[in-house]
Amino acid sequence: MQLHLKAELFQKTGSFKVRGVFNKLLTLPAEERDRGLISISAGNFAAALAFGASVVGVQATIVMPSGAARSKVDATKSHGGEVILTDGDLLEECNALQKERGLTFVHPFDDLAVIAGHGTIGLEILDDLPEVDAVIVGVGGGGLISGIAVAIKTQRPHVKIIGVEPATADAMTQSLAQGQPVHIGHPQSIADGLAAPFAGEHTLAHVKEFVDEVVLISDDEIVEAMRRLILESKLVAEPAGSAAVGALLAGAISFPPQSKVVCVVSGGNVDPSVLKRIL
Amino acid sequence: MQLHLKAELFQKTGSFKVRGVFNKLLTLPAEERDRGLISISAGNFAAALAFGASVVGVQATIVMPSGAARSKVDATKSHGGEVILTDGDLLEECNALQKERGLTFVHPFDDLAVIAGHGTIGLEILDDLPEVDAVIVGVGGGGLISGIAVAIKTQRPHVKIIGVEPATADAMTQSLAQGQPVHIGHPQSIADGLAAPFAGEHTLAHVKEFVDEVVLISDDEIVEAMRRLILESKLVAEPAGSAAVGALLAGAISFPPQSKVVCVVSGGNVDPSVLKRIL
Repeated sequence: MQLHLKAELFQKTGSFKVRGVFNKLLTLPAEERDRGLISISAGNFAAALAFGASVVGVQATIVMPSGAARSKVDATKSHGGEVILTDGDLLEECNALQKERGLTFVHPFDDLAVIAGHGTIGLEILDDLPEVDAVIVGVGGGGLISGIAVAIKTQRPHVKIIGVEPATADAMTQSLAQGQPVHIGHPQSIADGLAAPFAGEHTLAHVKEFVDEVVLISDDEIVEAMRRLILESKLVAEPAGSAAVGALLAGAISFPPQSKVVCVVSGGNVDPSVLKRIL
Repeated sequence: MQLHLKAELFQKTGSFKVRGVFNKLLTLPAEERDRGLISISAGNFAAALAFGASVVGVQATIVMPSGAARSKVDATKSHGGEVILTDGDLLEECNALQKERGLTFVHPFDDLAVIAGHGTIGLEILDDLPEVDAVIVGVGGGGLISGIAVAIKTQRPHVKIIGVEPATADAMTQSLAQGQPVHIGHPQSIADGLAAPFAGEHTLAHVKEFVDEVVLISDDEIVEAMRRLILESKLVAEPAGSAAVGALLAGAISFPPQSKVVCVVSGGNVDPSVLKRIL
């Protein structure tokens, strides 16, 4: 096939998340925005929200799991974000702080403005490669694939949109099977960016409507994709950013000969210790 | 300053070398080309020549040092190149084989067609960033900087062109000091792509005429640049490809505020063991 990589790892803050953040912050009523923002995140959304908030001149507080990648915590702080680390339930802690301080909650993925912002990737893919046959996207909470899928399917219904989840962090697959968002506890995967504890209401609805298939791959298959991207494509993709390529390499999904396939390389924020371990 | 990276690590075969190779092979008289080609290289030129030869349908033989990076030897073979490893003098071994087999010798850097091919990088920089103030380029045998410098200086004489050599592999600096190409034995540097044992006649003439300054940096400074490119720019640059950025980070060269500076990231072929060691 003809494989194209959509290199979102070069975005400011190192992932696609700034797309949704800016669309949200620039469409939020000023009085809500100016109260200050709060969210939950394992990493990339945290840094993107802190950066976006600093650009529009407000404060962002992000509740992160205490096991979050050190580099992602540091990146969030470096953009002026306040980081609250917790061992408890992210959303509970976040809700309590939000009420106490009168902040405006921005959901990291289950928000239509965030989803629409991510959808600009779909529009760019159609501009750059009008003859695209399929787009493969990693799935965590589902914000990225929801935006891309709605942007593409409403214009080119024949383009296949395929999601990829780690087998050990399959909130969307379980939610699709049960027909409603499922909470799966504290999923573990090398792809921290895909280890969302639940799928969203909006994202599940988008995936149901616009995504052709969600496939599962192992952490070993993600690591193999990272190695290949580093050594052959010269790209430092984080595990979540390598999952789409991993699904192809692992044969979890295949396409007719000559297909034009886009893998979204969603981010490149990875601790040196992880890189060292996988090389 | 405003820093731009010219990302030659994404070229086919993983470095800029294909530019010079194709210009050479497509301007070589057919009867010389069809005899088959022979050259010497520590790595990136070898893979590029093997690839170029396969595209134009001839055989390439490359004499490489037995200490060459394993991945570069493998890449050369994967493109159909014949690799002769030697502990002896590359050029002697090459000359003997060239005569014995009646092959056409293509110099890896001291060749005007090769230099002109590399010069297309300079033309692209002027197209992409007409207001460029300075371009920084790693120097091995000098082919890359010669091409870029002549392409840029003949159109925009005020643009500064700065070369960077490892302090332990300073053939060009020594040649400039002595006014003639100097052989420096078997230089050792983590930047194998810059550890040329000598500067060329043509390349020295180009550097004398068109390059403003050649600065020296340490291997540690090159490694620090590799780390920064991996972790912040998400680019897997090989040591030679990181030298230009390393010169900036190390303060070996500096520019007035607001300067628009281009660092050429010349290649990305690096063994996983080296990456592992530096992370």
